[in-house]
Amino acid sequence: MINKLVAEIKKKDAPVVVGLDPMLGYVPEHLTKKAFEEFGETLEGAAEAIWQYNKGIVDAVYDLIPAVKPQIAMYEQFGIPGMMAFKKTVDYCKEKGLVVIGDIKRGDIGSTSTAYAVGHLGKVTVGSRQYYGFDEDFVTVNPYLGSDGVNPFIDVCKEEKKGIFVLVKTSNPSSGEFQDRLIDGRPLYELVGEKVAEWGSQCMGDDYSYVGCVVGATYPEMGKILRKIMPKTYILVPGYGAQGGKASDLAPYFNKDGLGAIVNSSRGIICAYKQEKYAKFGAGNYAEASRQAVIDMIQDINEGRK
Amino acid sequence: MINKLVAEIKKKDAPVVVGLDPMLGYVPEHLTKKAFEEFGETLEGAAEAIWQYNKGIVDAVYDLIPAVKPQIAMYEQFGIPGMMAFKKTVDYCKEKGLVVIGDIKRGDIGSTSTAYAVGHLGKVTVGSRQYYGFDEDFVTVNPYLGSDGVNPFIDVCKEEKKGIFVLVKTSNPSSGEFQDRLIDGRPLYELVGEKVAEWGSQCMGDDYSYVGCVVGATYPEMGKILRKIMPKTYILVPGYGAQGGKASDLAPYFNKDGLGAIVNSSRGIICAYKQEKYAKFGAGNYAEASRQAVIDMIQDINEGRK
Repeated sequence: MINKLVAEIKKKDAPVVVGLDPMLGYVPEHLTKKAFEEFGETLEGAAEAIWQYNKGIVDAVYDLIPAVKPQIAMYEQFGIPGMMAFKKTVDYCKEKGLVVIGDIKRGDIGSTSTAYAVGHLGKVTVGSRQYYGFDEDFVTVNPYLGSDGVNPFIDVCKEEKKGIFVLVKTSNPSSGEFQDRLIDGRPLYELVGEKVAEWGSQCMGDDYSYVGCVVGATYPEMGKILRKIMPKTYILVPGYGAQGGKASDLAPYFNKDGLGAIVNSSRGIICAYKQEKYAKFGAGNYAEASRQAVIDMIQDINEGRK
Repeated sequence: MINKLVAEIKKKDAPVVVGLDPMLGYVPEHLTKKAFEEFGETLEGAAEAIWQYNKGIVDAVYDLIPAVKPQIAMYEQFGIPGMMAFKKTVDYCKEKGLVVIGDIKRGDIGSTSTAYAVGHLGKVTVGSRQYYGFDEDFVTVNPYLGSDGVNPFIDVCKEEKKGIFVLVKTSNPSSGEFQDRLIDGRPLYELVGEKVAEWGSQCMGDDYSYVGCVVGATYPEMGKILRKIMPKTYILVPGYGAQGGKASDLAPYFNKDGLGAIVNSSRGIICAYKQEKYAKFGAGNYAEASRQAVIDMIQDINEGRK
């Protein structure tokens, strides 16, 4: 799947991923109105609204981008109906040929991580049969529990030719509280980065590993060092746009081949119609606003990396 | 909810929690057979089997214990039907008067942690209405992203009078890879423990905070130090029994009042009928085997703490 991701990035000349992180407040009124008319102001109604909203965006941008990253929390908050909207979104994006990165940030002790890995990337056995649960192509993984929390994901990745992105340095303001603390003179995130490189060396695609990492756009000086520590690791870069990361800061995340990083934008794309810059589209054409925002983002990122 | 947890621990004289972490291989054949007859060898069939299995155990032990801890990964692996079995389990346990600790180990950047907190502990707003998503009483939280990943949970806890257990030192063999690394001469888990005490001071119940922590039974010498660092923090202790933790090691996790810790056992209870010690019950009476295992565990833990 890392090979497919790299091939799609090259083909579309777009190292970007659209974060499908729908909040109900982002959904244009005509969609919520229709969903509530059908299902009432219920969890089912909310799930229908975010699903239709996603579908509109995906239809408008799928030919431009290699991948999407649905943030499962935004669905999980609506309980079971929300999880069904997540699954529908994953399936629909895959039908459209997109690589799906499930932003699930799971991680637990060995047997439990196995269950997460099986549920999100692999197949679970039921009697004499096997089934995919959520069936993303990649998922994000939290490293706090160490190797035996991560290895079960890697085992499933090897079997399924899928991948993971391990949190190394997150984009949020307080990420430094633990991640930046110095251990033998070096920050924790560097040690995690070294582990990621080690884990990744076990399962290489053609040029990059199935094991990627997450490094926030908001910390470019750290991105530079981490790029060197993990040369074969694809970096998923959140924090561009709405969180404050700029394209000019992102050059260090890429290798000399122009590859090695994929930059996420969520609100900046899916909520484009609410920005002054794209207000002319109007809520009725929110998806076209998202399309224009994707085009602008790709240009912006490509200027930075080339 | 921390007050209710403490009250129930006192009332039942049982600082124990039963981990409802069903694997399909644990479920007695008569239950899987029945579920597969009704739903086929499908995800729905698997979900029905683990739900019936849970229900049998809960019916047999609810009067003995203050709390249960369903591990969501074990349900999530069966996709949407699995999540429905999780929700049914949560609801049923609450009906039985049990405190429900959702072992979800979530944690993300601020707005995303808010969505998880809302989905698992609080209410989500849909138009003019509000709904509980999964509605556990407590959840476990991963601290790797720092304060702004944890604070949204605390905000919801304050509103709902619910609680969290933050991972400090996990029970798995490789937990030391990052958690034990020395920062200014002190291991990372101690710094996380200090933060937990700080977070917890913002939202106190009568004697203990709504913010608890997780410290594995497999590291008692660390438990002793962490107990001192976090005197007002309830410690959820996994790793007893099947993972190797012994009751005699657990005394340091408790305060002098005999409170402050709650010990989890999952496989050791729910799979008791497969142990030689309880084999006489037979698979048909698996729930009675679990009941006997709970009685034995309570006695074992109480000898250690008194």
